[in-house]
Amino acid sequence: MPKRPIITLTTDFGLKDTFVGLMKGVILNINSDANVIDLTHNIQRHNIFEASHTIAMSYKYFPPATIHIVVVDPSVGGAQRPLLVVTEDHYFIGPDNGIFTSIFNECQSNFFKVYHITSSHYFLPMSGHTFHGRDIFSPIAAWLSKGTDSTKFGELINDFNSIPVSKPVLSDNKLNGEIISIDNFGNAISNLATGHLSELSPGQSKGNFRIIYNSNELPLVNYYAEHESPDLAAVINSFGHVELFKFKDSAADKFDIKIGDSVIITLG
Amino acid sequence: MPKRPIITLTTDFGLKDTFVGLMKGVILNINSDANVIDLTHNIQRHNIFEASHTIAMSYKYFPPATIHIVVVDPSVGGAQRPLLVVTEDHYFIGPDNGIFTSIFNECQSNFFKVYHITSSHYFLPMSGHTFHGRDIFSPIAAWLSKGTDSTKFGELINDFNSIPVSKPVLSDNKLNGEIISIDNFGNAISNLATGHLSELSPGQSKGNFRIIYNSNELPLVNYYAEHESPDLAAVINSFGHVELFKFKDSAADKFDIKIGDSVIITLG
Amino acid sequence: MPKRPIITLTTDFGLKDTFVGLMKGVILNINSDANVIDLTHNIQRHNIFEASHTIAMSYKYFPPATIHIVVVDPSVGGAQRPLLVVTEDHYFIGPDNGIFTSIFNECQSNFFKVYHITSSHYFLPMSGHTFHGRDIFSPIAAWLSKGTDSTKFGELINDFNSIPVSKPVLSDNKLNGEIISIDNFGNAISNLATGHLSELSPGQSKGNFRIIYNSNELPLVNYYAEHESPDLAAVINSFGHVELFKFKDSAADKFDIKIGDSVIITLG
Repeated sequence: MPKRPIITLTTDFGLKDTFVGLMKGVILNINSDANVIDLTHNIQRHNIFEASHTIAMSYKYFPPATIHIVVVDPSVGGAQRPLLVVTEDHYFIGPDNGIFTSIFNECQSNFFKVYHITSSHYFLPMSGHTFHGRDIFSPIAAWLSKGTDSTKFGELINDFNSIPVSKPVLSDNKLNGEIISIDNFGNAISNLATGHLSELSPGQSKGNFRIIYNSNELPLVNYYAEHESPDLAAVINSFGHVELFKFKDSAADKFDIKIGDSVIITLG
Repeated sequence: MPKRPIITLTTDFGLKDTFVGLMKGVILNINSDANVIDLTHNIQRHNIFEASHTIAMSYKYFPPATIHIVVVDPSVGGAQRPLLVVTEDHYFIGPDNGIFTSIFNECQSNFFKVYHITSSHYFLPMSGHTFHGRDIFSPIAAWLSKGTDSTKFGELINDFNSIPVSKPVLSDNKLNGEIISIDNFGNAISNLATGHLSELSPGQSKGNFRIIYNSNELPLVNYYAEHESPDLAAVINSFGHVELFKFKDSAADKFDIKIGDSVIITLG
Repeated sequence: MPKRPIITLTTDFGLKDTFVGLMKGVILNINSDANVIDLTHNIQRHNIFEASHTIAMSYKYFPPATIHIVVVDPSVGGAQRPLLVVTEDHYFIGPDNGIFTSIFNECQSNFFKVYHITSSHYFLPMSGHTFHGRDIFSPIAAWLSKGTDSTKFGELINDFNSIPVSKPVLSDNKLNGEIISIDNFGNAISNLATGHLSELSPGQSKGNFRIIYNSNELPLVNYYAEHESPDLAAVINSFGHVELFKFKDSAADKFDIKIGDSVIITLG
């Protein structure tokens, strides 16, 4: 473990309550050298898919050996197992409700292990059953960050849960994707990524693709300011995804774009 | 003081302005080893009771010797005294407006000292009288975190202020409590805690209690997913309080629950 | 560079997305000793003036050698240059769109240097052109915090951009200012500062000034609680600016105060 091990937090807790602050308190009480970083606490309430997608898009920007706690857990306290997922470079801690689906999908061909966390002597003494983020996930992350071996926390399992994830569908030389998130600026991000583009037509430059939203073809530009007109346009965003935008304005608000809306790519 | 002393912040400042960032700047300018942790900055504007309750429920999750700055201070700049409260394990810094009432109540039988902070040579040179968080509380916390002795900051006092705090009232084998906060998920938390339950009926298990809200008896379950039906239910939450919830939804919104609403426990 | 170098972040990114968390990941991946502090992420969307004003009011509260990343950048990805500004005590990193205007104005008479950041081998490999905060500004800040010399990042330039900044206008013994921001409490802050007051009438105490808003003279007090009545009043705030307030309430909401509203000071 590094001298100042990093623990990231991704939750739907919001910042109104003390939930996030208390997780940091618990972690620092066990390992005062831990550097706890908020990834986001504004995952849509109970949206396991959004959490799964968010952590999979983000973890690579952190150093190797970073520990990621991910908690969106409407069924907290029930039979659901707490998990520790160990990949080649990173650690992930959270409930077994499919929240690591995108991590599993991405690691398919690589090394990864999933532990069912059972060593309750690491847990906080629990006065209730509704806050595993504080009582289980935080202390496990803290002990892991102090160098405790992954094998100490529980047993290897293979029957972990995944959730269905919508992937773009190729048919008739069309890639049928959809909007999967709206960012703070009102940009609408689709599940169509650069990898899919090269699948559609290996070796083609992006000038050959046509992006269709709501029966209209959208101009595909390199950056926002390249399309200063007030109508809708598309860009390959900084995560390699096709994103719909309106220059200096909210595309989602102005064009009433919703999560789940269809976006199509065809060869030009 | 520990190698990386922790200073927590609890305020009603919100995160729109730079108030919180500036407090961290002032602290780090004095002690670059300080680890400043946000507990919450979304205490309801000017709600001294909420701040008092919040810090009393939270401080225990932080390591011994943590310094807690708590600022909800509509009367800032007036005659009100800045305080340093020293308990057996923790330090608390904030205005003398009752914000530490719940800390005082909890420490009743234990050791604690209250200092009126008067040593203005530790303060920031002040260009106005409206931001004690930055100009007084932050530098005092930072010097304290560097090991400056508590006695250096001012004189011991006994006439510190408290505010009235509503406690559950026992009459006719009924405990009459009330809703004291609504969390980010819309769960409604009462001032009825596990301690009160055992008071009502020592040695009884919770199966013997009946929770009454708005003339209806609510099912009392162990965790949210134990009651997936769309009606209101109760749980002992992770702070040991009786909490009203609706599974995967906002109980406060759907059942119009407000702070101050009556919640009653009777023996079944 | 200090043992734990400080990097502050000021953006219009908000806290819904992972933009801010990813910048921290990139920084810590390069320099795990960096201490990244949020100044604010709630600059009004695309408001370059607000960002410029905010950082100029704030940087002095941080220790010497602090690195400040400031990003409000609707034209990201275009021809606009990334800048590193080096003043006597601080470093500033952001786009060349006028975001450092208030820093330039303040440093006029002092030493400062502006570098056009061109050394792209320090950048993150870019999958798109829409997130310079993560791909350019964060790694440059991190390498600078590790001790890399400013001259390594690019060439000195003199033709950096500024934006027009409204300053109070003196005419007929009146100072004509305006409201430039509304804080989280609904206090309305003007661009009239203590420096302007002494300009208007050197050596005069504040008792001699009259503050006029919307044709009404406002009482000028030392702190909020000095004016508990429900009408509008003025205070010299903790940044030395004339601020309009309503005790324990939102002046902006109750008196419909807007950014750009005129505020006048005359000699009494």
